[in-house]
Amino acid sequence: MDTKLQPAIVIHGGAWAIPDNFAEASKLGVQIAAKIGYKILHSGGSALDAVEAAVCSLEDDPVFDAGRGSTLNEIGEVEMDAVIMEGSELRAGSVAAVQNIRNPVKLARLVMERTDHCVLVGKGANMFAEEMGIEEVSVDSLVTDSARHDWEHYKKFKVTVNEFFCSRGDPHDTVGAVAVDCHGNVACATSTGGITAKRVGRVGDSPIIGSGAYCDNNYGAASATGHGENIMKVTLSRHVLYLIQQGLTPQAAADKSIEYMFERVKGTGGVIVVGNKGDIGYNFNTKRMAWASLKCNTLKYGLNPGDEFVSDFNP
Amino acid sequence: MDTKLQPAIVIHGGAWAIPDNFAEASKLGVQIAAKIGYKILHSGGSALDAVEAAVCSLEDDPVFDAGRGSTLNEIGEVEMDAVIMEGSELRAGSVAAVQNIRNPVKLARLVMERTDHCVLVGKGANMFAEEMGIEEVSVDSLVTDSARHDWEHYKKFKVTVNEFFCSRGDPHDTVGAVAVDCHGNVACATSTGGITAKRVGRVGDSPIIGSGAYCDNNYGAASATGHGENIMKVTLSRHVLYLIQQGLTPQAAADKSIEYMFERVKGTGGVIVVGNKGDIGYNFNTKRMAWASLKCNTLKYGLNPGDEFVSDFNP
Repeated sequence: MDTKLQPAIVIHGGAWAIPDNFAEASKLGVQIAAKIGYKILHSGGSALDAVEAAVCSLEDDPVFDAGRGSTLNEIGEVEMDAVIMEGSELRAGSVAAVQNIRNPVKLARLVMERTDHCVLVGKGANMFAEEMGIEEVSVDSLVTDSARHDWEHYKKFKVTVNEFFCSRGDPHDTVGAVAVDCHGNVACATSTGGITAKRVGRVGDSPIIGSGAYCDNNYGAASATGHGENIMKVTLSRHVLYLIQQGLTPQAAADKSIEYMFERVKGTGGVIVVGNKGDIGYNFNTKRMAWASLKCNTLKYGLNPGDEFVSDFNP
Repeated sequence: MDTKLQPAIVIHGGAWAIPDNFAEASKLGVQIAAKIGYKILHSGGSALDAVEAAVCSLEDDPVFDAGRGSTLNEIGEVEMDAVIMEGSELRAGSVAAVQNIRNPVKLARLVMERTDHCVLVGKGANMFAEEMGIEEVSVDSLVTDSARHDWEHYKKFKVTVNEFFCSRGDPHDTVGAVAVDCHGNVACATSTGGITAKRVGRVGDSPIIGSGAYCDNNYGAASATGHGENIMKVTLSRHVLYLIQQGLTPQAAADKSIEYMFERVKGTGGVIVVGNKGDIGYNFNTKRMAWASLKCNTLKYGLNPGDEFVSDFNP
């Protein structure tokens, strides 16, 4: 392994009022994703490959609202969003309101690498998936009993999305990864099924470059989670990198950006950050956020405010 | 009229290699839009109403690539994007890949004011338009002979979008408006038909909060135009506001942000800016950008680098 720089990865599995029956599976899922990404980094692989593999693992895990486990929109369909970005040339790929595919983050990477564009949405994103030979999967294969139950609840009580998010905290939420590799390249990826009972075509912050994720080799990488509308209003991930540019550590930038989002628009959510030297940061002002980090073979993870469980990991 | 602050508005009609046969109509169109917006501001109206009315006027003008005059995508369809934002609470509304409506910016404002969301895309945006009672219009009513000619050229020569933008400069481009009203509220709006022969579902910077437009009463408002993929990579409009926050004038922020976009990602385009005290800025590194500004009853406008035509306007 190239020893120029100790690589590092940080994962989130969503910032919201994660219920107790999701707690253990959420903590486990982010640890698994961190290990998958770290193995790639540790063997000299790229930050881009690491965040893609980590987010794929989270998309495949039904406890998280992304890929399998996605929420249902107001008409009971699944529409997913994802973004991936790398920090050397700021190349980025994003898909929004895409349906019937297993791993939106993989499609986002193909948008980045195989088209002249950065963002494809709706039927166009699905046309591109078909062109790339990506298998179409059934809605049933993406939807869990839990997601369907949340949707039935919405249909019955007709609560609005704001009530959902602010009071019940029920909508699951977003996964993401940020990493720096041993060559000093940073990358980030974010993926989501969105908010339960969202309008058809609603897109949150996740696939939006600068809001759901942003990175630049000069500063670091960030991935956001939470109430997407408010995250977009303050372009949360871009804001984190501006704070690093102004001299803040990744941890201070995470703290200040969450504080700013709450002060400016009363937004709730969380963010994970890695600096271009491997310093790690995270913060959230929701009840819980599932997160994990791996650096120097040390795994850290948590769920509640103040949590920081530590264990060794030898890839 | 409230005299607390002299209101101001700046308009752009796209930054690209505007051909001579579009030159006069482009200059005229941005002046008309500036006057429409300024009349609202001068009579005490809001910056939000002013930018919406100005962009509607540009959408209705077939010389510009937005609303009527939009380009055709690779399969000969029209898919339009628009955003609107106000700077007091950072409320924003956006639509992307919406079809068969006349004024996407009006729909974006309805997303902001009538939903819990900020962004609706594709069929969901059209479902919402129908719900709001917005009339569906035919593709033919949106497409000009010129736009169809560009598309036929693409079909014949199969040039890629990058070639289109970088060499031929053929794809038309985006309209936008920024304004500050006499109460010190800022607003911005951007609208586009995108790039000729774009993939189905391709979304550029225009509807992306922070890229195609951004505003905050604490600093000012910005609207961008040009090669959307590169604008998104540097979140151009958000970048302008960070520079103002750091003490730059709106003009210096416009200059520096265009310079930064070129240095970091070789991006070409333009930006218009208004500070929260009414100072005006604009810059572009394309061959031409149609722009106009109106403040203290003085209309300024231009097309080529260095242009600054001045005339009086009494609303």
